[in-house]
Amino acid sequence: ADADALAAARARQGQLTKPPGSLGRLEDIAVFMAGWQGTARPVIERGRTAIFAGNHGFVAHGVSAFPASVTEAMVTNFEAGGAAINALADAAGLDLRIVALDLDRPTADFTTAPAMDEDECLAALSAGAGVVTPDLQILTVGEMGIGNTTAAAALSARSFGGSVAEWVGPGTGVDSAGLARKVAVIEQALALHHSAPASPFETLRRLGGREIAAIAGAVLKARQLRIPVVLDGFITCAAIAPLAAKVPAITDHCLAGHCSAEPGHVRLLRHLGLSPLLSLGMRLGEGSGAALAVSVIRAALATHAQMATFAEAGVADRL
Amino acid sequence: ADADALAAARARQGQLTKPPGSLGRLEDIAVFMAGWQGTARPVIERGRTAIFAGNHGFVAHGVSAFPASVTEAMVTNFEAGGAAINALADAAGLDLRIVALDLDRPTADFTTAPAMDEDECLAALSAGAGVVTPDLQILTVGEMGIGNTTAAAALSARSFGGSVAEWVGPGTGVDSAGLARKVAVIEQALALHHSAPASPFETLRRLGGREIAAIAGAVLKARQLRIPVVLDGFITCAAIAPLAAKVPAITDHCLAGHCSAEPGHVRLLRHLGLSPLLSLGMRLGEGSGAALAVSVIRAALATHAQMATFAEAGVADRL
Repeated sequence: ADADALAAARARQGQLTKPPGSLGRLEDIAVFMAGWQGTARPVIERGRTAIFAGNHGFVAHGVSAFPASVTEAMVTNFEAGGAAINALADAAGLDLRIVALDLDRPTADFTTAPAMDEDECLAALSAGAGVVTPDLQILTVGEMGIGNTTAAAALSARSFGGSVAEWVGPGTGVDSAGLARKVAVIEQALALHHSAPASPFETLRRLGGREIAAIAGAVLKARQLRIPVVLDGFITCAAIAPLAAKVPAITDHCLAGHCSAEPGHVRLLRHLGLSPLLSLGMRLGEGSGAALAVSVIRAALATHAQMATFAEAGVADRL
Repeated sequence: ADADALAAARARQGQLTKPPGSLGRLEDIAVFMAGWQGTARPVIERGRTAIFAGNHGFVAHGVSAFPASVTEAMVTNFEAGGAAINALADAAGLDLRIVALDLDRPTADFTTAPAMDEDECLAALSAGAGVVTPDLQILTVGEMGIGNTTAAAALSARSFGGSVAEWVGPGTGVDSAGLARKVAVIEQALALHHSAPASPFETLRRLGGREIAAIAGAVLKARQLRIPVVLDGFITCAAIAPLAAKVPAITDHCLAGHCSAEPGHVRLLRHLGLSPLLSLGMRLGEGSGAALAVSVIRAALATHAQMATFAEAGVADRL
């Protein structure tokens, strides 16, 4: 982040007509955005929400409450404007990009093989990077992929340790038998890939999925372009978990839009060193919590830009 | 709330293209708004934020980090558009009404007399009711009044019991000596008014202030008109505490916009049975947290109104 812009934004916050610190995280958000945009007065005129969709080979094991065909049906719904993310992206003033990644070709079943070969994983990373253009002032990421809380739990357990059960939750709503199947499938995958190289790329391609690798690619490209990113729920955070376990500073340009009701998310946010902006019991994915958080970020920037200073307003700043 | 509209909104939520409950509190908000607006598809086209300002006799005891003159200076700042609430009301698409209540005539010092006589308290209640017009689809309330966290703590302690120290916090930023003065001043006031009639009106006029009584009047008028209300921080909640202690259902048409950093607020929200939408460490007042929460409420209504149903989108709703 730009040190001069950070300092200028902090100085401005101290002069605005309010007790110091009284806008809480809104002040921190304004300073964070200033640092990454490289300007004392950050704005969101060009923001994008990128939603990546992929299918997973392991869903044959019965780990989701919905059939795999729903991934493609929901992409059609996104394109027709009928999903939650359509309403939320509109409400937040974000350009919505939907990227469906080879939906007719699910990843390999990670209990028997790496989910992706190297070329497939690189192609997905590249597809993610491709939606991040230099003009953007903020990027939010999201996903659609029936079964992908299972991949997210596997990535989290491989990256940060802990028992599989601690990382597993109901996802879209599986019952307790489904939960037990999730745990078993993930334990099998972790055992299979146990002695694989511990690099972030290997973890991502073996245990991730195309939509998950695309998110990682988008977050990395945004970092290169110094574009602030708003992460969504458990899956978007798991997408960067393999890298964050090795390079914790990868989250420096990221905000956690919300804390999902999926139980692994709060644990993962702690490992990533991120404190969520919202906690509203959401667990939809689709980038829904990230897009919602943009309204809070916009409000933070509005106060930062529009408020008068004590001097401008002629208000006494202390007893 | 309207039972038919509630039922229709709940039924619609169950048909939208998402796993049931996956939008968390956004679903509850849509149903709540439907009930109070009396329609299955609630909207916010006409929303208002009402900010009431008043001065307090007890500030002579040195309970605030700012001089009492700041109340009037900030009202001037509101009117000039330079305060946080101006930016936040704009960002939330809310009409902003500022009502300054006899700023040149502070309330009586509540350590030696009731803060207001009956006519003064009634006039303030009436001023609050006066800004609530039947056309509104949502109302948010806020306040400005140097010293008023002291009045809020006194109202809370009188209404719900507990030690004064549990209700007292730094407000705009007093030091530990200031905190001790706040506790002493409130204990003196509670002792003086100990044997007064325990009616909500008597508590409000003895320990409240004009801006606080005005908030109570606005919340009551909104209830009469079935207009949903978003409360802000500690002071707006304390304004209804005397009534809520006797009639808990008074909060049924209210949402808690946020949880303030002022430590009494989380305790008071529990007594009021309200769960805050946001928790961002804000402690500014001015209705800032309530206005910010309207962006979340708007997003909730956008998903409720715009999303396709499973049938419309041709998406399988289960395995």
